[in-house]
Amino acid sequence: MLVETGSAMTVLARFRQVRAETMVFAGRLTPEDMMVQSCAEASPVKWHLAHTSWFFETFVLAEFLAGYQAFHPEFHWLFNSYYKALGEMPEKKLRASFSRPALEEILAYRRHVDAGIVRLLENGAENEAVRRVVLGLEHEYQHLELAATDIKHAFFTNPLHPAYLHGAPGEPASAPEPVWVRFAPEAPGLIACGVTPEAAAVESFAFDNETPRHQRFQLPYELASRLVSCAEYLAFLEDDGYARPELWLSEGWDRMREEGWQAPLYWQRDAASAAGWRVFTLRGWQSLESLLATPVCHLSFFEAEAYARWAGCRLPTEFEWEYAVAASAVEGNLLESGRLHPAVAAAAEPGRVAQLWGDVWEWTQSPYTGYPGYRTLPGALGEYNGKFMSSQMVLRGGSCVTPRASVRETYRNFFAPGTRWQFSGLRLARDVAEG
Amino acid sequence: MLVETGSAMTVLARFRQVRAETMVFAGRLTPEDMMVQSCAEASPVKWHLAHTSWFFETFVLAEFLAGYQAFHPEFHWLFNSYYKALGEMPEKKLRASFSRPALEEILAYRRHVDAGIVRLLENGAENEAVRRVVLGLEHEYQHLELAATDIKHAFFTNPLHPAYLHGAPGEPASAPEPVWVRFAPEAPGLIACGVTPEAAAVESFAFDNETPRHQRFQLPYELASRLVSCAEYLAFLEDDGYARPELWLSEGWDRMREEGWQAPLYWQRDAASAAGWRVFTLRGWQSLESLLATPVCHLSFFEAEAYARWAGCRLPTEFEWEYAVAASAVEGNLLESGRLHPAVAAAAEPGRVAQLWGDVWEWTQSPYTGYPGYRTLPGALGEYNGKFMSSQMVLRGGSCVTPRASVRETYRNFFAPGTRWQFSGLRLARDVAEG
Amino acid sequence: MLVETGSAMTVLARFRQVRAETMVFAGRLTPEDMMVQSCAEASPVKWHLAHTSWFFETFVLAEFLAGYQAFHPEFHWLFNSYYKALGEMPEKKLRASFSRPALEEILAYRRHVDAGIVRLLENGAENEAVRRVVLGLEHEYQHLELAATDIKHAFFTNPLHPAYLHGAPGEPASAPEPVWVRFAPEAPGLIACGVTPEAAAVESFAFDNETPRHQRFQLPYELASRLVSCAEYLAFLEDDGYARPELWLSEGWDRMREEGWQAPLYWQRDAASAAGWRVFTLRGWQSLESLLATPVCHLSFFEAEAYARWAGCRLPTEFEWEYAVAASAVEGNLLESGRLHPAVAAAAEPGRVAQLWGDVWEWTQSPYTGYPGYRTLPGALGEYNGKFMSSQMVLRGGSCVTPRASVRETYRNFFAPGTRWQFSGLRLARDVAEG
Amino acid sequence: MLVETGSAMTVLARFRQVRAETMVFAGRLTPEDMMVQSCAEASPVKWHLAHTSWFFETFVLAEFLAGYQAFHPEFHWLFNSYYKALGEMPEKKLRASFSRPALEEILAYRRHVDAGIVRLLENGAENEAVRRVVLGLEHEYQHLELAATDIKHAFFTNPLHPAYLHGAPGEPASAPEPVWVRFAPEAPGLIACGVTPEAAAVESFAFDNETPRHQRFQLPYELASRLVSCAEYLAFLEDDGYARPELWLSEGWDRMREEGWQAPLYWQRDAASAAGWRVFTLRGWQSLESLLATPVCHLSFFEAEAYARWAGCRLPTEFEWEYAVAASAVEGNLLESGRLHPAVAAAAEPGRVAQLWGDVWEWTQSPYTGYPGYRTLPGALGEYNGKFMSSQMVLRGGSCVTPRASVRETYRNFFAPGTRWQFSGLRLARDVAEG
Repeated sequence: MLVETGSAMTVLARFRQVRAETMVFAGRLTPEDMMVQSCAEASPVKWHLAHTSWFFETFVLAEFLAGYQAFHPEFHWLFNSYYKALGEMPEKKLRASFSRPALEEILAYRRHVDAGIVRLLENGAENEAVRRVVLGLEHEYQHLELAATDIKHAFFTNPLHPAYLHGAPGEPASAPEPVWVRFAPEAPGLIACGVTPEAAAVESFAFDNETPRHQRFQLPYELASRLVSCAEYLAFLEDDGYARPELWLSEGWDRMREEGWQAPLYWQRDAASAAGWRVFTLRGWQSLESLLATPVCHLSFFEAEAYARWAGCRLPTEFEWEYAVAASAVEGNLLESGRLHPAVAAAAEPGRVAQLWGDVWEWTQSPYTGYPGYRTLPGALGEYNGKFMSSQMVLRGGSCVTPRASVRETYRNFFAPGTRWQFSGLRLARDVAEG
Repeated sequence: MLVETGSAMTVLARFRQVRAETMVFAGRLTPEDMMVQSCAEASPVKWHLAHTSWFFETFVLAEFLAGYQAFHPEFHWLFNSYYKALGEMPEKKLRASFSRPALEEILAYRRHVDAGIVRLLENGAENEAVRRVVLGLEHEYQHLELAATDIKHAFFTNPLHPAYLHGAPGEPASAPEPVWVRFAPEAPGLIACGVTPEAAAVESFAFDNETPRHQRFQLPYELASRLVSCAEYLAFLEDDGYARPELWLSEGWDRMREEGWQAPLYWQRDAASAAGWRVFTLRGWQSLESLLATPVCHLSFFEAEAYARWAGCRLPTEFEWEYAVAASAVEGNLLESGRLHPAVAAAAEPGRVAQLWGDVWEWTQSPYTGYPGYRTLPGALGEYNGKFMSSQMVLRGGSCVTPRASVRETYRNFFAPGTRWQFSGLRLARDVAEG
Repeated sequence: MLVETGSAMTVLARFRQVRAETMVFAGRLTPEDMMVQSCAEASPVKWHLAHTSWFFETFVLAEFLAGYQAFHPEFHWLFNSYYKALGEMPEKKLRASFSRPALEEILAYRRHVDAGIVRLLENGAENEAVRRVVLGLEHEYQHLELAATDIKHAFFTNPLHPAYLHGAPGEPASAPEPVWVRFAPEAPGLIACGVTPEAAAVESFAFDNETPRHQRFQLPYELASRLVSCAEYLAFLEDDGYARPELWLSEGWDRMREEGWQAPLYWQRDAASAAGWRVFTLRGWQSLESLLATPVCHLSFFEAEAYARWAGCRLPTEFEWEYAVAASAVEGNLLESGRLHPAVAAAAEPGRVAQLWGDVWEWTQSPYTGYPGYRTLPGALGEYNGKFMSSQMVLRGGSCVTPRASVRETYRNFFAPGTRWQFSGLRLARDVAEG
Repeated sequence: MLVETGSAMTVLARFRQVRAETMVFAGRLTPEDMMVQSCAEASPVKWHLAHTSWFFETFVLAEFLAGYQAFHPEFHWLFNSYYKALGEMPEKKLRASFSRPALEEILAYRRHVDAGIVRLLENGAENEAVRRVVLGLEHEYQHLELAATDIKHAFFTNPLHPAYLHGAPGEPASAPEPVWVRFAPEAPGLIACGVTPEAAAVESFAFDNETPRHQRFQLPYELASRLVSCAEYLAFLEDDGYARPELWLSEGWDRMREEGWQAPLYWQRDAASAAGWRVFTLRGWQSLESLLATPVCHLSFFEAEAYARWAGCRLPTEFEWEYAVAASAVEGNLLESGRLHPAVAAAAEPGRVAQLWGDVWEWTQSPYTGYPGYRTLPGALGEYNGKFMSSQMVLRGGSCVTPRASVRETYRNFFAPGTRWQFSGLRLARDVAEG
């Protein structure tokens, strides 16, 4: 990744804010809630609290703070997630067995690490240390988002289906009709994507996988002005979308059959609902009819792709998304809105695309690979992004549980195509007939 | 099962005691500890606390206490373990997701149920209700023992390996040499095993699987005067016991290879230990050399059986054990000793067998089946024991985490032959040469 | 195992006959048919042809025929089934990859081995050699039966569902009503089961697992006069037998659900059949209505046991079966009848039990364990039976594909309780009310 | 796919040739060999013979030959591979159970289909029919290659390790040193890849996944002048390549560990070999030292990618390969050479890249996706390529078992990244430092 400049003091202010946001989110959970690991993708929230502190301790304090004393002699490996260059680590599936260290001890660990970072930054850290702190904040934001998706799955798995928050936001009953918005790069059709290491280093943070900035040839294309809604997805479902192999990638069809998917994750048949389904949210069960105009979410890539084929369209590439979003401000239904669920689209201005930011991560048709000339960071931090560049697809734009500051036009999220526990949905794209 | 007579008031006193013992055991654990479910056989301790209350609520209060109000409308299915006659239940593996209800609510549930039972017994319950309370207490004791074995596994899985209690008991360095003790039923060689429903009903509790009392033909046989020790088992291990297929049942060999067993569960290679291994206990890691004279435990049936073959002997049948124990008092290293680990045998009196009670459950060569004329209880309680009568082996005698009052000469414990998380070991037996 | 006396010449005549019977059975198959291995339990018929020859080569010729030259330097391990004392062997599931050696080479191997055995027996073999030949013949018969069950499964798996033989035998439409036949051992209730090594050695062959002869205490009991029929089993099925957990052992219920059992193996729903099902046989598809009076077969132990519970009865023990069969002649629908499917029972004589021999292997409620004082044979042959004594159930009586000479009153067949590819069915038993 | 024009008579001549080549290849196998299916990716050769005929029957004869009588009423579904639009099909893993239809019947099926195609083409087929025949020939060639890879795996699985052919070709002991060859598209850096549907239709065959022809932006790059050799790969292996996680993609590392890879597929440790390994080939075992200069093959994408990282380079993209191959003639070590194993590279002319065609399929870093504007064919044929566009990687160039006529500069082969049973290897690429 690349890091912003800016004084250590600015970074310190951000550090305090981000670390506090994590604790605000966790504050609505009990220590027992924070123990749950309900699927292979998820981790207990308590682990997220520890691991994000471990990241600062390992990559910042241990290297840059003179005289730093590790909080606990075992934590260096206990809270390592996947950095093999740092040695062994516990198996991921065992994280729910970490009743010890107790939450109280994890919170003490956070305070210990916080104090170290404050001391470092107040005393004038060298540039690389500051850059690492900034990276740690991006990392913390990613885990804050994961904590939200993980606890949603945990509460869904709990037979009592508790709600994280109470009270539905009350969405409008209908969304504006989607229209096609055209994008046509000028001859010779080259667009630039990603960021340069240099620009990133002096302006703003970016991960290594967003670099280097490079040119791509792009034909004219069109994007839908808003995300696909639950009502639209329901039409696909009711048109036997889950029973027609011609709509699906072969791998997707097999996966869907094996796992018994009949609808997006978190939809459950409900005879009491006018639309036939209820939907589990961070605010508890909602009837599908109350959400029909909201963007559909918790789709796998395979479902998104099948829907697009059914609709006679296709998914956008990640570059089409990036070109469309241009330098627009990051505004939308992100974590800060407090909704914690995708919201009905506002009317888009003519010629503009709405809902590019927030609501749901948009599956693209782009496999997650390195950009031309991509280089990983040296050392253990090189494992942050690069080693996952196979069999995953890129998602763009952030979701309703993404912190605003952690997303940007070049940001590339990535998940395996069968993943559904993230807030993931889609926007339609299509080619432009020539002439 | 069958139930003792005795006044409701006597039962009430026992009820208070047993319920309190559970809480004493749990009192050394944190709410987070009580969330952990670290293997397929185990359950979280919190779940044990709830399920034992559910048992009283379902089988006693709901049926026999007029006007009883269920504590929570969902608990009737949430804390059902395996009684299919009562309807659906959550999948066992999801029990670790029950962050809600919180431990505090489970404790309130216990108090609510306790109050109901007290009211019932104080106001003169009918006989069947009292019998059910007695059954519930036996059930609670079984779960208290399970809680101990489950938390041991949980702490072993935890990378920090916390101890449940601190301080090793300090065992003697050597055990008395084992001698053979002979048993020869008189002509025509018939012995009686199990209990009659009638006798049980007027004297003491027994489960249905201990009935009916029946005759069996028994040849003369000999039992070793004490359990097999760690030192003896180490000799088997060092004689390539885990690498010689001729010593193993075919199913056991395959299982051992698949799961990579190289020693009893909880043994770990340890270069720092004179004996080459360390052993995880409820009192934390102990060097194997400090435990050499103690009974080996956490063996599967397959390991116990292979050891016996290596030693030129065999496992006893459950009937040989029962005949040998005769009407001896239940005295030994049981839960009440507070050791929580098997102890070195005392010297046996001449002609007597030691360590029949406590220390470790003794694997027998008897498959778990119904006795001739066996009948399950009517209704859901018929699922308590009978439906597990396939592919399991009987163990006898209780372990160091078995409450004294829950074990008796006819008590039959049973587990699948690959099970190792229980405190299970063995005693040698052999046929007597005729003449 | 134990072996008959009788001159080597008598054994030679039997050897020629048994080996020829195997080839007659295989003669109706193509080399391609003999390649198929359609489930984990089965082996290709070609492998059976080779392995039975390997048995004679390994345990007889290599040890007892001076100057014997092995047919092929690799066959000693290639066709080893499970004798670990003899070294490594190929994984069972790879047997279908043995296109080489070609069938022609396997047949040459058989001739080579045959010539060796003839030379040995003609020139006066020592007693142990003759005993081994006899054992090899029993072994060959077991594999002849396995070949029949394996090819049935292979043809069922083949989408074209070829028949091994053509033409249905034309069974009667009804069977005699079953009646209860009572057995009551005289006081003190002891019966003798199994054979003595000595008696076996001078009279007739028996496997080691049939020894020693020993006494058992036996209460009075009753057996049904014939096997359970398809019509009777259909009534269980139509009474929601596969949907009522109270009828099933817990392990059986889980297995049935996991594998989607809805009827015996080889039954398929068939709208064109009056009884709603068709049944695959070695003579191709038959309508269930044409087989209603025949014994139900291809049941797991779990299904047999559930049926018995539904019928208010129980399965017999293996000893009850053995006591009932007494010294009756082995007569029934065995392989020699040529039917290759269970047949409708004839009327039993008053006070006699019919269908004890042949038709289907009868599941008993007896787990497969060693008799008191059981000893395995020394050396590799000790692996023949003893190492399988866990988690299996005993079946008695032989089936319609069992060679007559290979079954006897003390013969113990054994399979895991979920096994269904054998011709396995059941007979009901019940306790006798006292007084 | 797209099809060439050319008279029906020309196509007929090619039809006869291709169909004959398949039979020549199969002619060295026994009917038993053709039954084997030794891994999940493979099919029995007999099935390949039938399926390729099914393809002509289904997509040509049934649609275009008036009065065509299907050979067998069940074959329409029996030999369907994966075309769900045509209805059900047998599970792939059951193909080894197809002892019936016998090979003889499959050969009769081939003759029946051949006669139909001849009749059709001789009598003046319409254009679409001719196009379908051409497609069927490409399809047949693909299956001819698969038959070669499948039988290699079958013979490797066979414990006797038979050879398909005898006699090693005798390769040179050393290969020319690789040099870097530079490619630099002219400004603005656009290259064209793929073919237009129109051009394909009038010139030569191409599959739908090779269309449309489209522009891409391409930076200057370099390719190694030859493939990576066994000697070079051995250096990676001996440099602990399989034990250093920093060299591997995360998915690849996990896969390698799970499956226990320690070398390319078909390498086996061999103390008798100077290089420490022997290598299984279609000509039987060869010592690794005799193959050191030949291209390494049977690598997964993960191994190829790890090797490239270890070498400080990267894999080429599929477009870099296509640009480099330009319009060169398809000449190399393809199926027609008869070697059936990769061969040592000849010296490349200065500035030229050698071994682009044949020897091994070259893993590229390009995920297999549709080109911009890609459309699948209508109907069932649309399932040929498009539905596999997820989680697979593109390979280019053909292997030593690829028929020459079936490969071309735009041809895209694709396999999942863990696949190793194909003749797959790699060529190094690198970026060009700017300035």
